Amino acid sequence: MPRSGAEARRRLQQAAMELYRERGFDQTTTAEIAARAGVNERTFFRHFPDKREVLFDGEAALRTALTQAVAEAPDDLQPLDILLHAFRKAGRILEDNRPFSEPRQAVIAATPALRERELAKAASLTDAVAEALRQRDVADRLAGLAARTGWAAFHQAAQAWIDDPAQSLDDHLRQAFDDLRALSAGKEAASS
Amino acid sequence: MPRSGAEARRRLQQAAMELYRERGFDQTTTAEIAARAGVNERTFFRHFPDKREVLFDGEAALRTALTQAVAEAPDDLQPLDILLHAFRKAGRILEDNRPFSEPRQAVIAATPALRERELAKAASLTDAVAEALRQRDVADRLAGLAARTGWAAFHQAAQAWIDDPAQSLDDHLRQAFDDLRALSAGKEAASS
Repeated sequence: MPRSGAEARRRLQQAAMELYRERGFDQTTTAEIAARAGVNERTFFRHFPDKREVLFDGEAALRTALTQAVAEAPDDLQPLDILLHAFRKAGRILEDNRPFSEPRQAVIAATPALRERELAKAASLTDAVAEALRQRDVADRLAGLAARTGWAAFHQAAQAWIDDPAQSLDDHLRQAFDDLRALSAGKEAASS
Repeated sequence: MPRSGAEARRRLQQAAMELYRERGFDQTTTAEIAARAGVNERTFFRHFPDKREVLFDGEAALRTALTQAVAEAPDDLQPLDILLHAFRKAGRILEDNRPFSEPRQAVIAATPALRERELAKAASLTDAVAEALRQRDVADRLAGLAARTGWAAFHQAAQAWIDDPAQSLDDHLRQAFDDLRALSAGKEAASS
């Protein structure tokens, strides 16, 4: 039975994740992923350039969501408030993908080459966010610092959300930005 | 004439940097580096595991300086003040190495594989700094966020110092941490 492209893509992602968890990323081949997804290897390569990119498929959507949200944030917000606004908007993509986000994180944590790819992606997204701030006339020097600082809070929140699913990512984001302000004000943040 | 190990090491580093700048990192071989330094290739491998690590030689010294300075910072400092203190102490290593730091940055910026190595190194140093804060009883969650935020300010300062040598790294560090506080207080930092 022929399947739609979107359906094949979803099945490939699920098959890849299962195999990476069962036997490890390095020990899995694209042929095995395709076989488990019930498609041929050519179909795999129509959707993904290699087995690594199956895990980084959401990068473009996250980049678009973040830079658009920075551009469209209310005029009267200060840089870190713009970023909290943007991360909350983009966070919905992650919340919708929670069943994928959680095992994905475990696979990346277990594989040095994937951790490097994740760091490179974070650096590139941070640069894109800084550029979006500059487009809003945030001073050059502050835009870079704000983007990196906001990313630190986002990273903290995403990690806490993976570890503690009882709270939403949105709650963790607000907590992390509160912590950031408390740190910079020289007070210990209230524990919650 | 036999040379001391430290002298050979220094010559190898200088030869590597010259070649990376002249013809690019990817186009340079360890044999060429050794030849330019006037030693044989075996001597190269006695000092460095590969041509990449010539550029990351200072990592262990920086890690020791940072974690020690965090441990030894005055008791009454808040987390970000501890980090400013630590980065200022460790910054002396970079200031002493300025003739090496500047071309090094240019070579790394031009080579994707080196940028990934630099990011991995920054992540690992950030984890070490967070752990040193936890040893001082900073709460787990805040230690990670403080370390990442402090690293963002350090990165900003080091970049500004490479671009603008008229000010010392120490001045740039104090400026970046001031910017951080101003950002988090919701005010635009005064430009200087």
